[in-house]
Amino acid sequence: MSGVREQAVQARAAGRRLAALERAAKDAALAAIARRLREGAAEIGRVNAEDVAGARKAELSPAMVNRLEMTPAVVESTAAGVDFIAGLSDPVGSRAGMQRLQNGLLIGKQRIPLGVVAMIYESRPNVTVDAAALCLKAGNACLLRGGKEAHHTNQFLGELISAALEEVGLPAGAVQIVPATDREGIKELLSLTGLIDLAIPRGGEGLIRFVHENARVPTVEHYKGVCHLFVDRGADLEMAVELALNGKVQRPGVCNALECVLVDQPEAAAFLPRLGEAMRAAGVELRACESSLPLLPAAVPAQDSDWGAEYLEKILAVRVVEGFDGALAHSARYGSNHTEAICTRDYSRSQRWLREVDASCVLVNASTRFNDGGQLGLGAEIGISTSKLHAYGPMGIESLTTEKWVVLGDGQVRA
Amino acid sequence: MSGVREQAVQARAAGRRLAALERAAKDAALAAIARRLREGAAEIGRVNAEDVAGARKAELSPAMVNRLEMTPAVVESTAAGVDFIAGLSDPVGSRAGMQRLQNGLLIGKQRIPLGVVAMIYESRPNVTVDAAALCLKAGNACLLRGGKEAHHTNQFLGELISAALEEVGLPAGAVQIVPATDREGIKELLSLTGLIDLAIPRGGEGLIRFVHENARVPTVEHYKGVCHLFVDRGADLEMAVELALNGKVQRPGVCNALECVLVDQPEAAAFLPRLGEAMRAAGVELRACESSLPLLPAAVPAQDSDWGAEYLEKILAVRVVEGFDGALAHSARYGSNHTEAICTRDYSRSQRWLREVDASCVLVNASTRFNDGGQLGLGAEIGISTSKLHAYGPMGIESLTTEKWVVLGDGQVRA
Repeated sequence: MSGVREQAVQARAAGRRLAALERAAKDAALAAIARRLREGAAEIGRVNAEDVAGARKAELSPAMVNRLEMTPAVVESTAAGVDFIAGLSDPVGSRAGMQRLQNGLLIGKQRIPLGVVAMIYESRPNVTVDAAALCLKAGNACLLRGGKEAHHTNQFLGELISAALEEVGLPAGAVQIVPATDREGIKELLSLTGLIDLAIPRGGEGLIRFVHENARVPTVEHYKGVCHLFVDRGADLEMAVELALNGKVQRPGVCNALECVLVDQPEAAAFLPRLGEAMRAAGVELRACESSLPLLPAAVPAQDSDWGAEYLEKILAVRVVEGFDGALAHSARYGSNHTEAICTRDYSRSQRWLREVDASCVLVNASTRFNDGGQLGLGAEIGISTSKLHAYGPMGIESLTTEKWVVLGDGQVRA
Repeated sequence: MSGVREQAVQARAAGRRLAALERAAKDAALAAIARRLREGAAEIGRVNAEDVAGARKAELSPAMVNRLEMTPAVVESTAAGVDFIAGLSDPVGSRAGMQRLQNGLLIGKQRIPLGVVAMIYESRPNVTVDAAALCLKAGNACLLRGGKEAHHTNQFLGELISAALEEVGLPAGAVQIVPATDREGIKELLSLTGLIDLAIPRGGEGLIRFVHENARVPTVEHYKGVCHLFVDRGADLEMAVELALNGKVQRPGVCNALECVLVDQPEAAAFLPRLGEAMRAAGVELRACESSLPLLPAAVPAQDSDWGAEYLEKILAVRVVEGFDGALAHSARYGSNHTEAICTRDYSRSQRWLREVDASCVLVNASTRFNDGGQLGLGAEIGISTSKLHAYGPMGIESLTTEKWVVLGDGQVRA
């Protein structure tokens, strides 16, 4: 049996034990992990320094090197995250929809862990701890396959977590680091039908595509965020400028940042100069369609490739559309099913936007930046799904569980 | 563009229209389909006769030929099924969990159609109508790829449904028959990422495996049902015999039929002779483990291959296990995550069975035959999922939908 298959078999056995645990046992494991993280902060820093030195030697970008670093502050915020997850309520075991049928059977659904979750991610080593904590709380075993560049740190964090699990009497196999070899290793992990219940890729488009092409196990994918704001006819234009500004500049490098503003034609002359001024002051480059260009002196002409682009930096596409249907059509064609907002005063169009736009989060008069597990009250998130099966949008602990049917009888048989 | 991709593009466009429909429009389409089925019963019979003749010529088994037949009675029950689905409530558009956050945002989830569903199935042509009706009611466009042997009937039913859709002003592309060519055609259908939101295979293990190996689009799979009944220490043995009998003989050829009885060792001597007598009277062949064999005079010795076997006929495996944990271990190793029942009088073990057994439906003191969409109150089912993502167990209309986040604000931005 190959190494990774052997790991998955162990995870499966550990998962069966985790599924039967009460909340207190899981929270005790999380407390032990948080304590060991804090106690081990200095040693984590030393091990992490090897990865950071390796990344510098390999001339990774400063941003990449920055993501790798486990400073004492990062260790503390990671440990605090584990404490926070311990404080969340346990979704496992709750029953919903219990109803008594005519034949006397009491039926309903009971929430259960998925079983074994595989995370496949890139640079940040704190994902190792976050994912382990979320999976544990939901009663799942997990296989964690991080990036090669964080290899030493991830191995060390894995040992620290295993020690914490053993300390509280849980199987060390419940959280396992899968060695970061080559992509063939990921392929093998993704082929373990019957051993892995869900694989979650987190990283660049290349990784997500690789997982999509090669997965035989179920996956939930987080593609890019091409988020739009539509400024409706009659909208509060001051609000529209604020929403655009917040969406674009509050944190440009994330998936729920705004990439394109659409404006209904009759508002263009009043809205665009104000938008242009605000964006200029914030240092944002504008790429404008033919109709908006004359109203945006500092803008450059948009190319076809600007529609649907995920800039992740201070660049914003701007387009004048023909009415509400024009906005719907643009969003359907170029959006990525991630986050779509409207700024409007019109009741009927607000309801149509909520109904007809196909995205994991649809907003009225609010910044696209709110499509986030923390902001939406999930406590913690393991990713944002842009596919519709199982979960659509931010995935919290409940998305790491499923429901089975339970039937309580006293001897009923079918006629 | 290939034919099937072209069909999927049309389905996608039709799906966008269906998603925005109110219930009355969908129910009108279903009523038109039911009416045309009844009006067309004679013609359906004539077209169907070609498929039946072809199947006889190809020397398909009598059971297969029987499944193909669209007699007037089958047409009527199919039309009645469509009427029934029209009467079910519409899951689309409902909102759940709406709560106001500290910052004044009102957030929650809104139920939406999946988009485009592909069904891949084998002989029964009434699945064409059932699946179309369920998908329509849930607001999904669908691509229906039935078996070659039902080709003429499926094409004709597809035209009948398209005519009904056009009659009520809905796009004919909302329900499309995908020509039954070879398996390469299925492969292409399964590769249409971004056009198909869910593929559901229904048929024999070969088809399910083919879909699993080749799908790039999300799938929900219905593997075999290897269902167990565990007779606990101290159980009501008369009830246990009734549950075993109902599970095995009420309809042996279906996935929720019982395949194996496990009995705790101390009950073996009292229980097995009664079970043996009842099964003998019902014409069931018993395959018994070493310990049960002396207590079952008519049984044959079980082989290793009997554990985990899905007989789908009047054969039952019987095994003595060591206590509750022995039963859990057998079920975990040989069960297919489908349906697992216990017969018990013990409170604590009943709760452990419900918590610890990993199956889409877990029962206490009830026949395995109740794991069925109709019996569990779903109204109609499109399949029984044995995978845990999105749906686990019988899938009704709600399983053909998902939820997106909705956020209603009045200008909120992130700090």
